[in-house]
Amino acid sequence: MDLSKYQNSFLSYLESKNWAREPKNLYEPIDYILQLSGKRIRPLLTLMAAEVFSDDFRKALPAALAVEVFHNFTLVHDDIMDEAPLRRGKKTVHEKWNINTGILSGDAMLILAYQFFENYPPEIFQNLALIFSKTALEVCDGQQLDIDFETRNNVTINEYIKMITLKTSVLIGAALKMGAIVSKAPEKEAKLIYEYGLNLGIAFQLQDDYLDTFGNPRTFGKQIGGDIIENKKTYLYLKALEVATTEDVKILNHHYSKKTENNSKKINKVTEIFIKSDIPNYIKEQIEIYTKKSFDSLEQLNVSKTYKQQLKDFGSALMSRDK
Amino acid sequence: MDLSKYQNSFLSYLESKNWAREPKNLYEPIDYILQLSGKRIRPLLTLMAAEVFSDDFRKALPAALAVEVFHNFTLVHDDIMDEAPLRRGKKTVHEKWNINTGILSGDAMLILAYQFFENYPPEIFQNLALIFSKTALEVCDGQQLDIDFETRNNVTINEYIKMITLKTSVLIGAALKMGAIVSKAPEKEAKLIYEYGLNLGIAFQLQDDYLDTFGNPRTFGKQIGGDIIENKKTYLYLKALEVATTEDVKILNHHYSKKTENNSKKINKVTEIFIKSDIPNYIKEQIEIYTKKSFDSLEQLNVSKTYKQQLKDFGSALMSRDK
Repeated sequence: MDLSKYQNSFLSYLESKNWAREPKNLYEPIDYILQLSGKRIRPLLTLMAAEVFSDDFRKALPAALAVEVFHNFTLVHDDIMDEAPLRRGKKTVHEKWNINTGILSGDAMLILAYQFFENYPPEIFQNLALIFSKTALEVCDGQQLDIDFETRNNVTINEYIKMITLKTSVLIGAALKMGAIVSKAPEKEAKLIYEYGLNLGIAFQLQDDYLDTFGNPRTFGKQIGGDIIENKKTYLYLKALEVATTEDVKILNHHYSKKTENNSKKINKVTEIFIKSDIPNYIKEQIEIYTKKSFDSLEQLNVSKTYKQQLKDFGSALMSRDK
Repeated sequence: MDLSKYQNSFLSYLESKNWAREPKNLYEPIDYILQLSGKRIRPLLTLMAAEVFSDDFRKALPAALAVEVFHNFTLVHDDIMDEAPLRRGKKTVHEKWNINTGILSGDAMLILAYQFFENYPPEIFQNLALIFSKTALEVCDGQQLDIDFETRNNVTINEYIKMITLKTSVLIGAALKMGAIVSKAPEKEAKLIYEYGLNLGIAFQLQDDYLDTFGNPRTFGKQIGGDIIENKKTYLYLKALEVATTEDVKILNHHYSKKTENNSKKINKVTEIFIKSDIPNYIKEQIEIYTKKSFDSLEQLNVSKTYKQQLKDFGSALMSRDK
């Protein structure tokens, strides 16, 4: 599968935009965060979906950039809330500048995202803005739930799935749907490709939870056990609370009630309980369920076999990244 | 002039919206800031402009609410940046909750503002979103310039006028223009009413600078001399640097280089120099120039005399508030 044509077009389009405007203290941080090369998965999905429905992906470039700018806006504001010093190995915006710059540059990015829709005629503009606003608000809801969960001790697995759906997956679905909208796909098709992305996004996030503890340290981008160090209430932890022995739940709660100096001991102990409680299999089962849901929506799409296969290959590639 | 029909309609419409959504930690702060009764000048202008061009102001209620929600979004984020503890005599959002809540609830408000445009058909939707995004970005630019000016010692009066135009006046113009758009006014008329608001906004802000030092303590809402205490580079200060004697400029710079315990002494000394340098007359002249510009645009409007008079009365009432 060759994704480079999307990637190259997107990067050229991104670079063609002049971010070096005045006042520079507002726009330099925007240029900075957009240059920190991420995986650019979301804009790629917008372009791919546009091509699937009209054999032309270039007209979706402004919508793809809107999605990427919005995603980076959430990173800038989330990093302030999380007090994160680093993003993709570089200083976060509020660290390199300051919190006020992070707030204001982020605000400007959210507005800029909407402005990219001005490249489309009124009907498409409105349809794009509609799914975009709905999704953006859901992402805020998800971020709020994530914050709320930090201080709650009765988070259910259903609530957790809802939180990751809002915080991460709806934007994957929306990125695809926006490509479909630009290509004037029928509403039914736009909905199906949204569902494909939504469920793939949930599977992806659960896989992220799995890899954070059980991934290959050489290939996984982040520190193994990071979620355990941070006492994050991931699927692994919440499922363990449900199925582990009373004794093990007690030990888990003890470890998750504080931060420690001796992280490797904590990681080893918690991981041991996860394995003993069969959590890797529970989560793999869930990942399979959501991946299957995702591919089921794909099957129902009324597009050529080649495009279906391309979307499926993309999903499979995304889900086999622990190898 | 009876503005109460606009005000009552707007307040009913505001109250008809259900802000008490989940997650409540995200939406309660939004409800809180929107209930803190401000002057509601901006939505009133949207409604008035809509009526001027179509004899019907009610259809502009969603656009008016978008303007008010956006304005309150800027207050929430600006209050974080300014570390302001109070807003309209009540705790600011980040004080009552925390900074993260202020950031995230503010973000949600910006998105909600866009969603109110979904009440309109595609063409009007796009026109509203266009002026809204342009204006919102200008307000961010203005806020950034305001921050930049704090640490700059070579701010010119032209730069200052540009800053207050972006930070305050463009939204006054846009509020009116959005009413015109909802009422499908010709582009030329929409532009004229925008200019009316823009220049009235500049006159209003300059008047605010004047009243902050020379207002009546019994009728002016804020502490007299607040700008002097904060070393704010207002028109008064910048003009004084231009026209005062070398000796007085030295004294001014001395007072503006630090914060002091003895504010009343500082206020008295600075005010004395302002008066000696004839600054009240300089600023009154500017206020008159911008008010006249504003009313000139009004004269060119192709609407009934009654409506023209109503807009003029509104402007006059706004500009005679030191009495």
